[in-house]
Amino acid sequence: MCNFHFIQECLIRMAMGWFCLPFCALWLLGSMCILFTIYWMCYWHGGFAWDDTIFMFNCHPVLMVAGMVVLYSAASLVYRLPWSWVGPKLPWKFAHAFLHLTAFILTVLGLVAVFRFHNHKNTPNLYSLHSWLGITTVFLFACQWFLGFAVFLLPWASLRLRSLLKPIHVFFGASILSLAIASVISGINEKLFFSLQNATNLYSSLPSEAVFANSTGMLVVVFGLLVLYILLASSWKCPEPEILTERQPLLHDGE
Amino acid sequence: MCNFHFIQECLIRMAMGWFCLPFCALWLLGSMCILFTIYWMCYWHGGFAWDDTIFMFNCHPVLMVAGMVVLYSAASLVYRLPWSWVGPKLPWKFAHAFLHLTAFILTVLGLVAVFRFHNHKNTPNLYSLHSWLGITTVFLFACQWFLGFAVFLLPWASLRLRSLLKPIHVFFGASILSLAIASVISGINEKLFFSLQNATNLYSSLPSEAVFANSTGMLVVVFGLLVLYILLASSWKCPEPEILTERQPLLHDGE
Repeated sequence: MCNFHFIQECLIRMAMGWFCLPFCALWLLGSMCILFTIYWMCYWHGGFAWDDTIFMFNCHPVLMVAGMVVLYSAASLVYRLPWSWVGPKLPWKFAHAFLHLTAFILTVLGLVAVFRFHNHKNTPNLYSLHSWLGITTVFLFACQWFLGFAVFLLPWASLRLRSLLKPIHVFFGASILSLAIASVISGINEKLFFSLQNATNLYSSLPSEAVFANSTGMLVVVFGLLVLYILLASSWKCPEPEILTERQPLLHDGE
Repeated sequence: MCNFHFIQECLIRMAMGWFCLPFCALWLLGSMCILFTIYWMCYWHGGFAWDDTIFMFNCHPVLMVAGMVVLYSAASLVYRLPWSWVGPKLPWKFAHAFLHLTAFILTVLGLVAVFRFHNHKNTPNLYSLHSWLGITTVFLFACQWFLGFAVFLLPWASLRLRSLLKPIHVFFGASILSLAIASVISGINEKLFFSLQNATNLYSSLPSEAVFANSTGMLVVVFGLLVLYILLASSWKCPEPEILTERQPLLHDGE
């Protein structure tokens, strides 16, 4: 599938840390995004519970950052690992679909957390621009997953349809991540305006919580930009694009 | 520079409305983004003035949407017009740089509006995540403009340096637009939480202003996604990339 020269080049590039270093940086940044959000919710907001109270709401930012940003990014970058360029593509397709499904489940749990908290408090759902953008992003994510599953994993789609839809699939993948980041930014901003309202602890006086949560938001942005760069830059793509990757149906002779 | 077959193909594609239709849609969407923001500020917030009061603040969202989103997008898409693919590239380089400079001036005026309003009211500057992300975006925009001017317009940079920096320039161009959209979304959300606070007119009760401003935010997102698609999709790029575009310095024999 890939000739000796190409495999050799892959191994050289891997050995040089060309791929490993940015992926380690991403792993570190992604872990920091999740851990910082957990710390924010634990240290300033009392931690987590699954009981319709404010402690259930606290699960919302953590699940959204973990599912819709970090795990979504990991799932999207599966094809940028040089190991995925050699050998059969099907296991990588399954990994891509499975990781995205896990990200989607975390995202839905994140939505359940905020909806149940709002309903318990008789607060309306889906009124802010943050929520409008967030729910649109999740809806696009669901459409993208089902379309990807139907076209690229199931065996019925023609090669022509796959070739036609692949750039759109990649573009929407990157767009959904960008919208998720915009939703996270507006969500953190909104949460801080809610929680830092009293005169002794105003958001505008930049208390420690504000500095910490703002920094977490900026960290999410840096992480997202690095992911988008690796996802879109041609130097990170498989040197033998289109032809092989999208032509492997789910059921294939000999697999 | 481009052969007859290529020019003919361009003309056919233009005649078919392949390019004109999406650009007309973009023009319409971009105009609507600006007009909706102006209407929001006029109808619900009393219009504009340049006098350090809240009417000066009202200039901020309009100038940011007009400068940092709509005009920035127009400037970025200069090279996606088929007319720019034929003939000398230098006028298009100037148009690209000039439109971006105009977008940057509008953006700086938008910042002046909010800083002067805050200072007049003794409100601290740059405390919210919206402002952190916004000011970072403007800083990146400034760096991008100066780097682009120095490398792609002035004649000193080597071809190798231009080839090396071009994909980074395009990626950061798209990233800055994405960050600008995230800033606009968090800014509209923040403004609505500020202005819809009293019991008879809460944001959570979705009064007409909230529906209108949320819709404006979603319109900005749709506009941004369309721009990013045209900017990044290969079918919109000049069929003779890299080689010709970036090799024209400012001063060139015969120009």
